[in-house]
Amino acid sequence: MSFYDATVPAFLQILGSLSGILSKAEAHCKARNIAPEVLLGARLYPDMLPFTKQVQMVCDFADKSCARLTHSEVPSTPDTEKTFEELKARLAKTIDYVKSFNPAQFEGKDLADVTFPIGPTNTLTLKGQQFLNNFAFPNFYFHAATAHGILRHNGVEIGKRDFLGVN
Amino acid sequence: MSFYDATVPAFLQILGSLSGILSKAEAHCKARNIAPEVLLGARLYPDMLPFTKQVQMVCDFADKSCARLTHSEVPSTPDTEKTFEELKARLAKTIDYVKSFNPAQFEGKDLADVTFPIGPTNTLTLKGQQFLNNFAFPNFYFHAATAHGILRHNGVEIGKRDFLGVN
Repeated sequence: MSFYDATVPAFLQILGSLSGILSKAEAHCKARNIAPEVLLGARLYPDMLPFTKQVQMVCDFADKSCARLTHSEVPSTPDTEKTFEELKARLAKTIDYVKSFNPAQFEGKDLADVTFPIGPTNTLTLKGQQFLNNFAFPNFYFHAATAHGILRHNGVEIGKRDFLGVN
Repeated sequence: MSFYDATVPAFLQILGSLSGILSKAEAHCKARNIAPEVLLGARLYPDMLPFTKQVQMVCDFADKSCARLTHSEVPSTPDTEKTFEELKARLAKTIDYVKSFNPAQFEGKDLADVTFPIGPTNTLTLKGQQFLNNFAFPNFYFHAATAHGILRHNGVEIGKRDFLGVN
């Protein structure tokens, strides 16, 4: 299959499932009379990034990775979201962006160099396939599963099927 | 690149990083005089699978996915681990198994059908690439990140760099 098939559908699956998870979290807040900002700011440990930032990073790893892999202009989205609705809009915008790519843009990019920042001052260069598998995917799934874990820990009734988007 | 390059290195990265995380968790227990079974049995919520089972599932999704993708005999490992040492041995055994595959075994398997069980009675058939991206990877990373989150929540000093295996 094409490198596009190895990339875009994987991002879209989790971006979509996360949107469903956000809807369940929002409904949970309404049903239990929980202020949304409590869940949006929840963490698994005090020095960990809060739920909202986890979702923003999921979006960043999806859209920036697609851009870097295809040597497109890398988008930069300010992290301004403060409500479930705004976070869902951020996910929807990211989904639209990821969907805007076509297979031709990914052709041969598994073997092309990708240079990307690691930390504030360094860059790293990897082949596209390695960038995807050793950097983009593990980061993307890490923040998505951590977002799921934060809600799970706070009693939102979700499970792995929600994460996989099959619920 | 080959389908092998899209598969085996990704599994090996996280299996290896998880082994390092287990060492940190074990050291944390020793330093704080915490009984290892407390962390091994920890969960983010009462009806969630405990840490040990999360690691066992990471191993299962790595070895079984490689087997299914290459149409090899699917391994079945009993979940008997009760200590950090035993869990690390399980990871090491899984790493050896995943390393035993060679690129030729994956050739063309992105386009070949994979039939696999979903739940106790049903099966699903997907092309290899779809099986990898829509089932194997999200499950594999989900359990790995959840294992990380459980330890993080319990104060083990780990971060995303440990998850990525760059620490």
